[in-house]
Amino acid sequence: MSVNVAIIGAGVVGSAFLNQLKNLSSPIALNVVYLARNSKEALISKDYLPLDLQTYQTAPAQAVLPLAELAAFLHASPKPAVLIDNTSNAAIADFYPEFVKQGISIATPNKKAFSDKLAVWNEIFANSAAPGGGLVYHEATVGAGLPIIGPLRDLVATGDKASTTKFSDVVKVAKELGYLEPDPRDDLNGMDFARKVTILARIAGFEVESPSAFLVDSLVPLPWRHKRKDDALAENKVLRYVGQIDFAANKVSVGIAKYDFDHPFASLKGSDNVVSIKTQRYPNPLIIQGAGAGAEVTAHGVLADALKIAERVAK
Amino acid sequence: MSVNVAIIGAGVVGSAFLNQLKNLSSPIALNVVYLARNSKEALISKDYLPLDLQTYQTAPAQAVLPLAELAAFLHASPKPAVLIDNTSNAAIADFYPEFVKQGISIATPNKKAFSDKLAVWNEIFANSAAPGGGLVYHEATVGAGLPIIGPLRDLVATGDKASTTKFSDVVKVAKELGYLEPDPRDDLNGMDFARKVTILARIAGFEVESPSAFLVDSLVPLPWRHKRKDDALAENKVLRYVGQIDFAANKVSVGIAKYDFDHPFASLKGSDNVVSIKTQRYPNPLIIQGAGAGAEVTAHGVLADALKIAERVAK
Repeated sequence: MSVNVAIIGAGVVGSAFLNQLKNLSSPIALNVVYLARNSKEALISKDYLPLDLQTYQTAPAQAVLPLAELAAFLHASPKPAVLIDNTSNAAIADFYPEFVKQGISIATPNKKAFSDKLAVWNEIFANSAAPGGGLVYHEATVGAGLPIIGPLRDLVATGDKASTTKFSDVVKVAKELGYLEPDPRDDLNGMDFARKVTILARIAGFEVESPSAFLVDSLVPLPWRHKRKDDALAENKVLRYVGQIDFAANKVSVGIAKYDFDHPFASLKGSDNVVSIKTQRYPNPLIIQGAGAGAEVTAHGVLADALKIAERVAK
Repeated sequence: MSVNVAIIGAGVVGSAFLNQLKNLSSPIALNVVYLARNSKEALISKDYLPLDLQTYQTAPAQAVLPLAELAAFLHASPKPAVLIDNTSNAAIADFYPEFVKQGISIATPNKKAFSDKLAVWNEIFANSAAPGGGLVYHEATVGAGLPIIGPLRDLVATGDKASTTKFSDVVKVAKELGYLEPDPRDDLNGMDFARKVTILARIAGFEVESPSAFLVDSLVPLPWRHKRKDDALAENKVLRYVGQIDFAANKVSVGIAKYDFDHPFASLKGSDNVVSIKTQRYPNPLIIQGAGAGAEVTAHGVLADALKIAERVAK
């Protein structure tokens, strides 16, 4: 039992992924047949025999395949094909609908395809659901290796609903103020976080048009932030950066909120994220907390998805 | 795409499961071909056409099939077969290795098979891994609908390890004192909780021989408990019932421990469970918290597993 895997990216997350993959002991083989080790160079196994991952950094390389050619190469694979996109590249994300249409499954931490225009999201999953469509797993797009998307999809699939009381938020995501995503500009204006909230909102059934379609509080310059933090402390509260998907109010938002010290959101540390899901079945919320960023945890989120795909499609 | 499903049990969890199943909207059909509505009566579709779930309580029934005959009936199914065991029956659990050997997949909240003798656990998963073996999903055996077993298996599968510092517990499970499992005798002596800890320990790589193979603090009579709780409060602490799987100490245990008010285990409410997983990748632990018991959440844990099985085996 095996699948043929194409990997794009060998940066911080990508090299952690390759390292975990090298040490993988799995009943289903993930054979790497294409590896773009940077934006220009790729190792390509034209005969679909597994590449040697030990030497990927130094082995003679070729020019990366244009995306349409990569899709054709994977579509012609004698084994089911899986694309691992370990980049945050928008052009690759834009090509996901086509990969999936051609029966190529995708595992990725790349948020772009899932958090930009709603039409792209709809096209990806429509193509995936169509006969012969590839599978799409993207757990690492929200909380790195934290189990968030899978469990939320399970709740939706088994018929759980937003509660209709005033505590009607289906999903809240919080992160500690001060932790920055790789691209600080992205985080300072809240866009990276808004992307995560967009993805969860869509899974929960909200047709969010784009991460610009709802109110996003920017993280303001540091001196102002310190002042606001001190004011909160004086009230025995802490500040957290929170995304809310509120069905009763029919509203998605991202902003800074105050929490008491004994609130689950107050105990966040460093790069931890916490997600609180309140539904009819979980009036007392389901809470998932832990590191929501970092190379190793992101890589294992992607690898676990790749294994789930392999379990479903391997031959 | 469909699978043929046999369901045993229509009690509290079983009827919640049937209700969720009736309302299921899934691209893969779960066709119920056998339904044991109690320990004596079953609806049996000899020609493997789907039973009508709307009338299962009143439709004319037959005697339940002995387990060997049920296995033969499912083995002969023209579609892949899934057994849903919504009981806590030990005799059915003892038969899991045989079901799995015959290619029948299992989704269940029944802890017995996974927490009794290690040999049974080993036999179930050896048969599952053998060619033609059925799949086994049992998320609901530890935290009902909480995502615990799946994420822990993902960590293990992708190569995460126990940390080697003094904070070496891979898994801790806590529950509030005072909440009782359905069989109070089972809970008072800590056996039900010890079963959950046994299951997690085995997934984490500990070869626990049985839930009697490690130290389990019994929950002592109420007056004594109140005294101990008051003593803890005087120290600004709360009591929690905690299972620990400690790799550095090579030890599994269940007992009562004190926690500060700002510890994640302190904020537990009612029937909530909390699991803290500390590994090399999660030195700051991965925490999953929420209702760990109850019919609806247990049922959706089983149904989500059944859907995962269907996604892998349906034809």
